[in-house]
Amino acid sequence: MSDRYQFFTQTPLGRFLVQNLGLPDPVPLDRWTGGAPPVQGTVLVGGTGRLVDALPGRLDKLGITAATERLDGQRYKGLVLDATGITTSTDLVAARDFLAPVLRSLETCGRVVVLGTPPELVEGRERVAQRALEGLTRSLGKEVGRGSTVQLVYVAPGAEDAADSTLAFLLSPKSAYVSGQVVRVGATGTTDAPALGDWDRPLAGKVALVTGASRGIGEQIARVLHRDGATVVGVDVPQAASELKVLMDELDGRSLVLDITHADAPQRIAHHVKTELGGVDVVVHNAGITRDKKLANMSEDRWQSVIAVNLAAPELITAELLAQEAINPNGRVIGVASIAGIAGNLGQTNYATSKAGVIGLVDSLARELPDGITVNAVAPGFIETRMTAAVPFATREVGRRLNAMSQGGQPVDVAETIAWFASPASAAVNGNVVRVCGQMMLGA
Amino acid sequence: MSDRYQFFTQTPLGRFLVQNLGLPDPVPLDRWTGGAPPVQGTVLVGGTGRLVDALPGRLDKLGITAATERLDGQRYKGLVLDATGITTSTDLVAARDFLAPVLRSLETCGRVVVLGTPPELVEGRERVAQRALEGLTRSLGKEVGRGSTVQLVYVAPGAEDAADSTLAFLLSPKSAYVSGQVVRVGATGTTDAPALGDWDRPLAGKVALVTGASRGIGEQIARVLHRDGATVVGVDVPQAASELKVLMDELDGRSLVLDITHADAPQRIAHHVKTELGGVDVVVHNAGITRDKKLANMSEDRWQSVIAVNLAAPELITAELLAQEAINPNGRVIGVASIAGIAGNLGQTNYATSKAGVIGLVDSLARELPDGITVNAVAPGFIETRMTAAVPFATREVGRRLNAMSQGGQPVDVAETIAWFASPASAAVNGNVVRVCGQMMLGA
Repeated sequence: MSDRYQFFTQTPLGRFLVQNLGLPDPVPLDRWTGGAPPVQGTVLVGGTGRLVDALPGRLDKLGITAATERLDGQRYKGLVLDATGITTSTDLVAARDFLAPVLRSLETCGRVVVLGTPPELVEGRERVAQRALEGLTRSLGKEVGRGSTVQLVYVAPGAEDAADSTLAFLLSPKSAYVSGQVVRVGATGTTDAPALGDWDRPLAGKVALVTGASRGIGEQIARVLHRDGATVVGVDVPQAASELKVLMDELDGRSLVLDITHADAPQRIAHHVKTELGGVDVVVHNAGITRDKKLANMSEDRWQSVIAVNLAAPELITAELLAQEAINPNGRVIGVASIAGIAGNLGQTNYATSKAGVIGLVDSLARELPDGITVNAVAPGFIETRMTAAVPFATREVGRRLNAMSQGGQPVDVAETIAWFASPASAAVNGNVVRVCGQMMLGA
Repeated sequence: MSDRYQFFTQTPLGRFLVQNLGLPDPVPLDRWTGGAPPVQGTVLVGGTGRLVDALPGRLDKLGITAATERLDGQRYKGLVLDATGITTSTDLVAARDFLAPVLRSLETCGRVVVLGTPPELVEGRERVAQRALEGLTRSLGKEVGRGSTVQLVYVAPGAEDAADSTLAFLLSPKSAYVSGQVVRVGATGTTDAPALGDWDRPLAGKVALVTGASRGIGEQIARVLHRDGATVVGVDVPQAASELKVLMDELDGRSLVLDITHADAPQRIAHHVKTELGGVDVVVHNAGITRDKKLANMSEDRWQSVIAVNLAAPELITAELLAQEAINPNGRVIGVASIAGIAGNLGQTNYATSKAGVIGLVDSLARELPDGITVNAVAPGFIETRMTAAVPFATREVGRRLNAMSQGGQPVDVAETIAWFASPASAAVNGNVVRVCGQMMLGA
């Protein structure tokens, strides 16, 4: 699971070879540790629009040091540009004017966040200009380098006060492996959200169900949700029961051993969380399998088993939880899609179909869920797990380096993104699919 | 502009090396030649839903031989699957059941078209299943090989009779370099369309304006629209006036020499087409420039010049043509975006912003245009032009091979896609951005 190449590049011989052969030079990424503030450094705020005036005060409340005047020699850990005031393509130069001079003052693992208006909520030239920002942020993500990330956050009119959890996440080291993403706040569902509250235990008092929780990314999701204060209900198949029990004992959580594809699984899960815990606040549909073959050689069984676990189970479990009112108001439904579900992948028609379906599930539920319940999904790129460690060397190295960070992500990066969706303060974050991929070059 | 590598792979020594070293093995792509029918071979039709019953008759009218029963030993040039009958994820296996057994009978440069229902027009599990199809087609596009293409066409309920031009294009060699795409018919605007009519001269009697027409992709667009029967008005800057005149003389077209970024350009263009030609039917915003620099080193001038040509000019020219009612009813506005506008690109914040804005222009106009006027855009990937011939060898080879066809596209491939949008029979094709990229792996 370790990235020996990255370790090697930090040795004297490694550095010499990297610099002289033009090899990928991955920067060790900052990651959040308990008790640390969201940002260690200063965030420079600029631009014009609906958000800029209140931003310094807002960041201050989040424990983030903000500045509105650029000082010579000062270095910045983050840059936040309010671009909601841009209403024509000719005005887009304002984004260049703020960013270009200050990019060299951005620290390693810096953060650039551009704030815009959801294009679909405005018309004419403003819609064009706002949509154009995506080209800026995706390009800048590919050139900024040194472990820094660049995101575009579309904040709906009226949702200005609901973006705190998103700002804090994207400015913090919790978003280490998230870059080049477009996030919408308040574009579907409510434009309100409670204050961010306790940065260290945002999920205190909440119950979180995680499928496939015994190992890999699922294990890390359970750990991070527990760290954030949630009571975790880990679900896994009978073969993983003992691993699951060890982990849940460590996390003071509950184990629920069952096969999520069985006909009675949705009902058993709903019954369990309702009677034992009085309902669930966060549902993470993490369990997933692969059964790769080219379509010409794919049996019905391979096809159906992947669809059943990765797509039909999340659909049916969510539906049953909703039918039994087992998801508490302001609950969270979180799916796990995949880059393969976006770009397609050779030998993975079944897997990519299931993961594209998870995106469809987000689209569908985002407009249907009651009681302030939101739905979002992560789409992991190359994440260092036992599964990717088993991939042949050359394929693995290509997957690992073909992104703006020149390295694979860690399971914790996926888990932190899920924890951001799960936060009560993310009430206006609904209908998003966010890649956790270091801005991997593959896509559609 | 030639692809020497591809030529080399077709020599005896080249074939030996390709087969023994695992080098990319690009298949020479079929391209359409005047007078040929849409498909040379048989198209097998299957699946269940709103379209399948009428499909054989529909294809027959287009001059395409259709079969509904698979015969042992028969080879197929195309496969069309009606997947509109799929309403749950569990039913998706029907797509496997039709496609898997017949893929080995698909001829070189074969065509696979999956027909679905726009997910946003249905709800619940049907929406999920229809959205999931995208994972299937994008994956299959990456594994089908031998110059074959795979597309997903979402046909809105009620638009079943309006998909002929799209079916004919995607089944024909005109779509040689289009693969892995998702196309919507009837999802925005009208669900009606006139019959396809004359496959050889669909634009007879129409007037087409093409900016940047003197060379490269613009020249090829002018040639193809002329071939299809249109009177072409070529627009280009004074420096290209003589090249433009030679081409327009050859095509019996008109030259309009002006800089599209000048303040009076929109008015001059509108006045010209209105007074000289009684209006324009097809507007192709092809003119584009690059001024690459990393954002940290980008001057205001470099930024603004690219935005002005690639984005503001299309916006302002379209607005003026509409204001003066110079675009005829059932007209076509066609933009040229870029993979860079979708995925972002290092050193191209200005270019990618302008091209993402072109996508925004399509989104914006698709809901606003009057009189049955449609708007769509192409997004070219690696196309063999003088511009790409000047790219350094290693970068060029990566760009050229990093797609499902293992080769660059030709300007004619972009032009054919534009001609499909331009066709009167494409009245229900509105709001699409279609990549002409051989399913290049880069994306967002």
